Amino acid sequence: MATLPILQDHELGSEAATLFDEIRTARDTDYVNHFWRVLANQPAKARSTWEQLKVVMAPGALDPLTKEMIYIAVSAANNCDYCVHSHTASAKLRGMTPEMYAELIEVITMASQTNAMANSMQVPVDDCFLVERADG
Amino acid sequence: MATLPILQDHELGSEAATLFDEIRTARDTDYVNHFWRVLANQPAKARSTWEQLKVVMAPGALDPLTKEMIYIAVSAANNCDYCVHSHTASAKLRGMTPEMYAELIEVITMASQTNAMANSMQVPVDDCFLVERADG
Amino acid sequence: MATLPILQDHELGSEAATLFDEIRTARDTDYVNHFWRVLANQPAKARSTWEQLKVVMAPGALDPLTKEMIYIAVSAANNCDYCVHSHTASAKLRGMTPEMYAELIEVITMASQTNAMANSMQVPVDDCFLVERADG
Amino acid sequence: MATLPILQDHELGSEAATLFDEIRTARDTDYVNHFWRVLANQPAKARSTWEQLKVVMAPGALDPLTKEMIYIAVSAANNCDYCVHSHTASAKLRGMTPEMYAELIEVITMASQTNAMANSMQVPVDDCFLVERADG
Amino acid sequence: MATLPILQDHELGSEAATLFDEIRTARDTDYVNHFWRVLANQPAKARSTWEQLKVVMAPGALDPLTKEMIYIAVSAANNCDYCVHSHTASAKLRGMTPEMYAELIEVITMASQTNAMANSMQVPVDDCFLVERADG
Amino acid sequence: MATLPILQDHELGSEAATLFDEIRTARDTDYVNHFWRVLANQPAKARSTWEQLKVVMAPGALDPLTKEMIYIAVSAANNCDYCVHSHTASAKLRGMTPEMYAELIEVITMASQTNAMANSMQVPVDDCFLVERADG
Repeated sequence: MATLPILQDHELGSEAATLFDEIRTARDTDYVNHFWRVLANQPAKARSTWEQLKVVMAPGALDPLTKEMIYIAVSAANNCDYCVHSHTASAKLRGMTPEMYAELIEVITMASQTNAMANSMQVPVDDCFLVERADG
Repeated sequence: MATLPILQDHELGSEAATLFDEIRTARDTDYVNHFWRVLANQPAKARSTWEQLKVVMAPGALDPLTKEMIYIAVSAANNCDYCVHSHTASAKLRGMTPEMYAELIEVITMASQTNAMANSMQVPVDDCFLVERADG
Repeated sequence: MATLPILQDHELGSEAATLFDEIRTARDTDYVNHFWRVLANQPAKARSTWEQLKVVMAPGALDPLTKEMIYIAVSAANNCDYCVHSHTASAKLRGMTPEMYAELIEVITMASQTNAMANSMQVPVDDCFLVERADG
Repeated sequence: MATLPILQDHELGSEAATLFDEIRTARDTDYVNHFWRVLANQPAKARSTWEQLKVVMAPGALDPLTKEMIYIAVSAANNCDYCVHSHTASAKLRGMTPEMYAELIEVITMASQTNAMANSMQVPVDDCFLVERADG
Repeated sequence: MATLPILQDHELGSEAATLFDEIRTARDTDYVNHFWRVLANQPAKARSTWEQLKVVMAPGALDPLTKEMIYIAVSAANNCDYCVHSHTASAKLRGMTPEMYAELIEVITMASQTNAMANSMQVPVDDCFLVERADG
Repeated sequence: MATLPILQDHELGSEAATLFDEIRTARDTDYVNHFWRVLANQPAKARSTWEQLKVVMAPGALDPLTKEMIYIAVSAANNCDYCVHSHTASAKLRGMTPEMYAELIEVITMASQTNAMANSMQVPVDDCFLVERADG
């Protein structure tokens, strides 16, 4: 149902096969999801996306679960069915409890609501929210 | 520049004036931002929005700063200039460091990127991401 | 600030000048707004857009004010600042009262809220909402 | 297929069961749609959403059918498949004729078209569309 | 699954039947896709959409394949599953190679990424990007 | 007006200063636009974005001007004011004529229109548009 084939393991070239091994190891599961099987049609892009994703989602100033919840929020607002499903699954794996999920949905809903208010009434940004540069 | 007047304090009815007092107390600042001054044209709506916002953004399974960052993520994806600015300001007030902000932007960007990939190639959701009901 | 010049009257070719006369007559005002002045760089497109708009917004099964409010709703959701402003002005000219406007904003906000819920939790469409064809 | 179970009647807690009874009575049908069955995982949120929806969609300065059509317009622009289907069904129940529906789609389409024009050519809002405050 | 019936050939009125004949001839295939079969419920709209589409997608300053790729890009960003699928099929028919498609997806993804950056950090447009009018 | 300072040359660290030199050389102009000056607050991200952009926008199966027009199309649909302006300027530099630009806007508008139709009427994707896998 994608615009490119969802490649099976035996259809992968060596570059993609190596990537799939890494994904399996990193995630500790044999399952590789459709996103990577479609992207594997362009192995170099699959590789660079995976490398970028590892860096971005690694623990840092924000923990991986917080990052997954932010990911869900963006994906829901962008209406990406695939990413909502896959990152909700990831967030659960990383310890998102039903209570955390309920609050995540609440915040997404609240933000969508005030976004609609501000956009439909064209509320202008307050001067004080604009960054002032400290130097002259 | 809004579609309704940005009400000044002396233009408020008593219901909105009482609300503004509460907002000032809750936030410990005399400044009330445009969003509330526009919404004050519909005092009952302003009141219910404020009550809802207090509950949704209160500490719970998620802390208030995490909630603010999720709010920014939704507002950026929904392209609400006003809410991006006002909630970025709120998040800074609640302790968002430059490092946290940099990672927030990274995750928003990464999600937007894979959202675009999944949507443009119409990747179908894997069966395993779909919730199975436990009962028969 | 547009990507094409906002043409002044003395810069118009005859095709656009004729169109502007028609717009002025139809609206009973000498003012022609930026949208048409930018579009006038492509006079044939300006003409076909105007003809289409006249037909779509004419009284029919829905009255012109209802149509303007639907127009505002779409423009707010699509985040078109220009169209939100211009059609809010049109709706006021066609008799939208403050009470009607308040309810319009309420419905836009409510819809945005349940849209966010349904999208973030990926609620599947009920079979009964799908149209059944009557013939075999 | 949702990220939370679509609860069946025998799985409901008493708070959600009471809500479902109210929904059935208000709508004069035994059928409760998926949206509420998913939301029932968070009974307090389901309750508050229902209460808000009843108020917002009640007859007022705008009639319920006009509100449903505005709801469809927002949901289409926000690309919420679920809400487009469920509110198109509601609008038909409230008397939307094929002629009204055809015009609704026409207006949604026309608005999307001029939204795209104004956004792609970045047409700046005319000063005259901006609200002037009456006091000095 | 549409909100209107997907009309079969024997259900068409004469106006829609004539249009379908033209579509078949223009495309050199007997297959008429769902979009036109749903739109055929409003034959005049189906006709005007077809006429407009023929003009817009005809060879001009841009060739038809370039136009199809731009169409895919807009449809992906607007999250229109139907149009992404149908115009990806059209683009392949018009000679889009796997290499061209890969680059199209790359550009769509890159743009979505910098769109997210600019929107989330609210980067203000540089003065030099704004059109200067040539006359005084 | 951004959420981070728009850095001036004398405020740059060495990593960002080196990047700006490269941007100036690559573009053959002394002017470095706001996007890079905001991104320079996160020099590593600025660097990786620049490297990615150079690769994605380089001549390949698609020429750079075609890529710029696709970029504009995505940015308009995503409603990124900044990117619409900056990439329209880039496209003009790369030879986009007024005729090409007019047709680009036409295609963006046409796609937005049929996107709205397909989404609002929920037209289901035809089976024949779905990719069939060649192997058994």
